[in-house]
Amino acid sequence: MTNKASLLRRVAAELIGTAGLLVVVIGSGIQAANLSRDTGVALVANSLASAIGLGLIITLFGPLSGAHLNPVVTLTAWWARRTGGEGLDTREAFAYAAAQTTGAIGGAVLAETMFGRTPGTFSTQVRDGGHLLIGEIVATAGLVLVIQGLGRIGRPRLVPAAVAAYIAAAIWFTSSGSFANPAGTIGRAFSDSFTGIAPQSLPGFVAAQLLGGVLGLALAALLYGREPREGGTTAPRSGQPETEAAVADIPRTGSAFEAIV
Amino acid sequence: MTNKASLLRRVAAELIGTAGLLVVVIGSGIQAANLSRDTGVALVANSLASAIGLGLIITLFGPLSGAHLNPVVTLTAWWARRTGGEGLDTREAFAYAAAQTTGAIGGAVLAETMFGRTPGTFSTQVRDGGHLLIGEIVATAGLVLVIQGLGRIGRPRLVPAAVAAYIAAAIWFTSSGSFANPAGTIGRAFSDSFTGIAPQSLPGFVAAQLLGGVLGLALAALLYGREPREGGTTAPRSGQPETEAAVADIPRTGSAFEAIV
Amino acid sequence: MTNKASLLRRVAAELIGTAGLLVVVIGSGIQAANLSRDTGVALVANSLASAIGLGLIITLFGPLSGAHLNPVVTLTAWWARRTGGEGLDTREAFAYAAAQTTGAIGGAVLAETMFGRTPGTFSTQVRDGGHLLIGEIVATAGLVLVIQGLGRIGRPRLVPAAVAAYIAAAIWFTSSGSFANPAGTIGRAFSDSFTGIAPQSLPGFVAAQLLGGVLGLALAALLYGREPREGGTTAPRSGQPETEAAVADIPRTGSAFEAIV
Amino acid sequence: MTNKASLLRRVAAELIGTAGLLVVVIGSGIQAANLSRDTGVALVANSLASAIGLGLIITLFGPLSGAHLNPVVTLTAWWARRTGGEGLDTREAFAYAAAQTTGAIGGAVLAETMFGRTPGTFSTQVRDGGHLLIGEIVATAGLVLVIQGLGRIGRPRLVPAAVAAYIAAAIWFTSSGSFANPAGTIGRAFSDSFTGIAPQSLPGFVAAQLLGGVLGLALAALLYGREPREGGTTAPRSGQPETEAAVADIPRTGSAFEAIV
Repeated sequence: MTNKASLLRRVAAELIGTAGLLVVVIGSGIQAANLSRDTGVALVANSLASAIGLGLIITLFGPLSGAHLNPVVTLTAWWARRTGGEGLDTREAFAYAAAQTTGAIGGAVLAETMFGRTPGTFSTQVRDGGHLLIGEIVATAGLVLVIQGLGRIGRPRLVPAAVAAYIAAAIWFTSSGSFANPAGTIGRAFSDSFTGIAPQSLPGFVAAQLLGGVLGLALAALLYGREPREGGTTAPRSGQPETEAAVADIPRTGSAFEAIV
Repeated sequence: MTNKASLLRRVAAELIGTAGLLVVVIGSGIQAANLSRDTGVALVANSLASAIGLGLIITLFGPLSGAHLNPVVTLTAWWARRTGGEGLDTREAFAYAAAQTTGAIGGAVLAETMFGRTPGTFSTQVRDGGHLLIGEIVATAGLVLVIQGLGRIGRPRLVPAAVAAYIAAAIWFTSSGSFANPAGTIGRAFSDSFTGIAPQSLPGFVAAQLLGGVLGLALAALLYGREPREGGTTAPRSGQPETEAAVADIPRTGSAFEAIV
Repeated sequence: MTNKASLLRRVAAELIGTAGLLVVVIGSGIQAANLSRDTGVALVANSLASAIGLGLIITLFGPLSGAHLNPVVTLTAWWARRTGGEGLDTREAFAYAAAQTTGAIGGAVLAETMFGRTPGTFSTQVRDGGHLLIGEIVATAGLVLVIQGLGRIGRPRLVPAAVAAYIAAAIWFTSSGSFANPAGTIGRAFSDSFTGIAPQSLPGFVAAQLLGGVLGLALAALLYGREPREGGTTAPRSGQPETEAAVADIPRTGSAFEAIV
Repeated sequence: MTNKASLLRRVAAELIGTAGLLVVVIGSGIQAANLSRDTGVALVANSLASAIGLGLIITLFGPLSGAHLNPVVTLTAWWARRTGGEGLDTREAFAYAAAQTTGAIGGAVLAETMFGRTPGTFSTQVRDGGHLLIGEIVATAGLVLVIQGLGRIGRPRLVPAAVAAYIAAAIWFTSSGSFANPAGTIGRAFSDSFTGIAPQSLPGFVAAQLLGGVLGLALAALLYGREPREGGTTAPRSGQPETEAAVADIPRTGSAFEAIV
């Protein structure tokens, strides 16, 4: 189930999926900034396109690898396993994070190429200031809470749509623009464009994202209790099978998908 | 079911949920006003982000506390119990409203902090004029009608998406910008920004919201009849279990969720 | 089932529902035109708010009256009955259309009042030119095709979301702005604002809408065949119960809802 | 099942459906460019309207013909049959492509007429440069991957919504504006407007789209394996019937719909 071949395939999915995500984020940012004279309009387009792309990639790649696309999400899966649940072991988590980071850089290069720009140029957009780091903490804590919460209330199939919607909103309500993804943040350093981030701002953003991830796990434990029962519900349900609208098959981040590949 | 511990937990959920809502509303308002030179563009972004945030919070916090996030909604639950249905007793309703108001102020402070502003500054944006109060009455009556109506036609699972969609539209179609939430209105007084409201305009807005809530209940009774049957349907159904797409588990505002915690 | 009392109630629902629709359309138009200096931005906000309002009203009022909200839709229900299906008789159709028109005017007056304007002022916005009438024909034909088509393929529960989405798009892709509703068009004549229409342009628009309605019925007959089978499907299905996501209960416009009230 | 009469009907559906799509794309482009002074705003409106129109047409025409609306999609269905699955034979594929192209040109002419312009004028908007062709390859590969992927993971009912969402995003994240449809591209050559393309740019775009289609099929094979099992799943499922929210009935592009007409 977690033999070498299947890990390879899952890692390929993480790499291609994260590359696709960065193509969408950076590409739509370049297009939007080119077309509009108003930064608000550009961010409306960029945030909607990014959210849609994220939702579709989670839907399509979820059954392959869990569609983490984000080292923070992979870390929560690693933590889930360490604390006795299903998830990723240390080796798998490293492989995922490496694939995500590699994919993100590749996606940035493809986006730059597709727009006739010089790939490999570093971003010059410095994103500094403690309040931006608070923004990244809030953004990542919220992301983890959405994913964990949907698992705890037994509605993991809403994850793709909910994560997409969350990111569309968080880009606006956080001061930092809600990168909320260390791999994505590194990838964005490779594009001197609307959605880029200067390499010197990377350490602060990544540290804030990791801190936000821990805060999100703590908040989920506070609200829903520490031990999710088998099946992901914390509350008695009326016994009828859940037939609700669902947007994807992800039963819980980094858990059931291991059985698939 | 309504022991002290569970009330405490529900109240915590109302506090954190309402804080999150205000972070989204105020934060996205600050960001949008900063980025766009066009107030229309700013409100497009602010209304979409606010609606998404509201929908996600109702989805995630509904199974914990009913996700009222709004004293008017809590009042309708209190009224439902007084008239013989399920709902909140007076003590619970006070606790909910206090938690919502506290959370709203806390969320405003966090939003201000996240954007590097001075928290605790009162809004200077006066919102006066009788026509704005008509706007708040319409906005709140509509909100209550949406929630009550979905319960009466047996489709309470649509509440999170429908309430989110309603607010996105009502921000535009009402003259007042559809605050429609006394706790949220008080929270907004603590931010001198795009979505703020000067303290002196609070009494009128809150009074209009309460009046709108009563009007919404009356309208629901007029349209759907006074006594919703058990199960929330007013019409014979074909007997098949409802398997429709649903966005959350809320069976009826302030009712079934009490049984969960 | 069609006794006087129930017709009264259905007519009340049509009146209130259409009034609500006009409040949303005209109100959001006034707000958008006030806030933005760019007509494109104003129409983005106005079209999204109108579509959301329409979808919510169809969802909430569908189980009461079928939520026609539009004399053209009522005419298709009258035609369905004349040709041997379920629908409205002539007296009911007249009552529906009168209620829709009265409600539309009332909604316009409420919107004007809510924005502190003088209600009862006629629009001065002349909408002339044969190409606009082609636009109205296309808009209304498409609307009828969407409603009829969903019934024919056995997916009537998608009607509220699909009609809302259709209108959001048709406002953009038709030259006339897709009024597509004689009652709504008359109501808009009572508001000298962004979404208004001068009384002198009414006859052409209404005629084009009626023609579009006929064209839509013809197109549906051409594509799906003339005789929809019981259950609304034209194709063999795999036997599993339909458990798809559905957005409302409307089984077919102007049919099953008669049995409800 | 594939007798002359049914092919005729399917071909009519492809023709009318593709005409409708072009009316939406070109019409909303003309309207948006007329109303907004900001190209970004115009593309926001044009991309949302086009996506909604596409999703509705796939929903309504899917049960009739599969709603390919696009020769690249038809080619993937032809390829599926050649490799032993269900799909279209060569004669059917040619008929589909011809109908799509004819419909696209007709839709362009209708859009021009509806906006009071001179139909039959060729576009003068040259879209040249190798990076735009990379954009078209990416856009079309992604489109094919979305359709194939949803089939492979057993969620074909998401196709209409997912394809609509994909196009809304791809218009932004690709440098070319994501035409991704040879018939649609030819139709756009017949409108000298916002969404047009000069005839001299056609060959490059169409070639890139075909190449992208092949790349999409290869990517799907790489990620999901070469042989989709009957039922479209590549992974063991938990045995419960799929009751998820679904937006349409399309079981797999160009497969099960053949049995319907």
